[in-house]
Amino acid sequence: MADEPATEILDATYRALCEHGYANLTLQDIAAEADTSTASIHYHYDSKNQLFAVFLDDLYERFTDRVDSPDGDTPREQLDTLLQVLLSTEADPSLRAFRTAMLELKAQAPYDPALQERLTDFDEFLFDQLREILAAGVTAGEFDDHIEPARDAECLTTTITGAHTRHVAINQSSDRLYTTMTRYIERHLLADEQPEVAQ
Amino acid sequence: MADEPATEILDATYRALCEHGYANLTLQDIAAEADTSTASIHYHYDSKNQLFAVFLDDLYERFTDRVDSPDGDTPREQLDTLLQVLLSTEADPSLRAFRTAMLELKAQAPYDPALQERLTDFDEFLFDQLREILAAGVTAGEFDDHIEPARDAECLTTTITGAHTRHVAINQSSDRLYTTMTRYIERHLLADEQPEVAQ
Repeated sequence: MADEPATEILDATYRALCEHGYANLTLQDIAAEADTSTASIHYHYDSKNQLFAVFLDDLYERFTDRVDSPDGDTPREQLDTLLQVLLSTEADPSLRAFRTAMLELKAQAPYDPALQERLTDFDEFLFDQLREILAAGVTAGEFDDHIEPARDAECLTTTITGAHTRHVAINQSSDRLYTTMTRYIERHLLADEQPEVAQ
Repeated sequence: MADEPATEILDATYRALCEHGYANLTLQDIAAEADTSTASIHYHYDSKNQLFAVFLDDLYERFTDRVDSPDGDTPREQLDTLLQVLLSTEADPSLRAFRTAMLELKAQAPYDPALQERLTDFDEFLFDQLREILAAGVTAGEFDDHIEPARDAECLTTTITGAHTRHVAINQSSDRLYTTMTRYIERHLLADEQPEVAQ
């Protein structure tokens, strides 16, 4: 028994989503994962839609916690940490299941403006993180000053999104992509002369 | 009345998929689009699954026709044509609807090995095209010889995939991305000295 049943229901929603996918997900599935009844879920959440809205808020919090302030003493190290976190395909066996559910949600977005808005929040948070890291690196002289942070952050955001799609659709590992992007950063983003702190 | 009813059913499947999405698509929807009966569809195709397998074969043919041998006198021009074709978000109002249906299929792939195999064919065809163009450009001296065609083609394939996902999920235009990638090619892929034919 969890101390906070409402939170336990959100955790169960995550597990049920990974197991059943979004299209077929029912309150019964979530209740079974939470080892409770649908009546108990209704005590905390008015409807499946309301539960799912709260679930997406919770997911957004977890995502921003994971992506916010990545480890690293310099922008380059922070960028590397972020790419490691986001391009991992191996760490967690349930990762592909989760990304599959997220991809279902993305395909539903054109029919659901509230969902599209939430997904836009995820996308913008990642984009902003990348843009800020690139801008900080340019300011510190670690990244080349030909970089336009917004433009390059959009490109990185798109590539990361594509890696997640390919992980789901064709079970493509991102290991080589991570190596390629690391080399790309070394070759094209780093300034020719590094500030002392970076080395 | 089409001369080839089986082909007309495939065209109707495309339109019905864009209109209804994959999850909710029924033979009735396809029959309505084809202005025919489900009995007539069954005359040509044993089941919805068989129709859909043939439909995906047909879609693969159309995709490879569109992506094969892009216009251009040099590898750089061919790469530019390919990016223009694949990063367009404006040209056809039904494009987002089609990409939405494709994204639904991608999210279904983990549950359907035959579908994942077909999607892998699409991905590999694009990857091979990009790899061949990059390799031809290196051989011709138009692209810088530090390029590793397979590695860079994977990165481009992933970014293009991500652009399609973001077009669906957050209605993101790829216009700026196309400009960014064009600049990237100019700045980082082109050899410092261009062969005469390219200029």
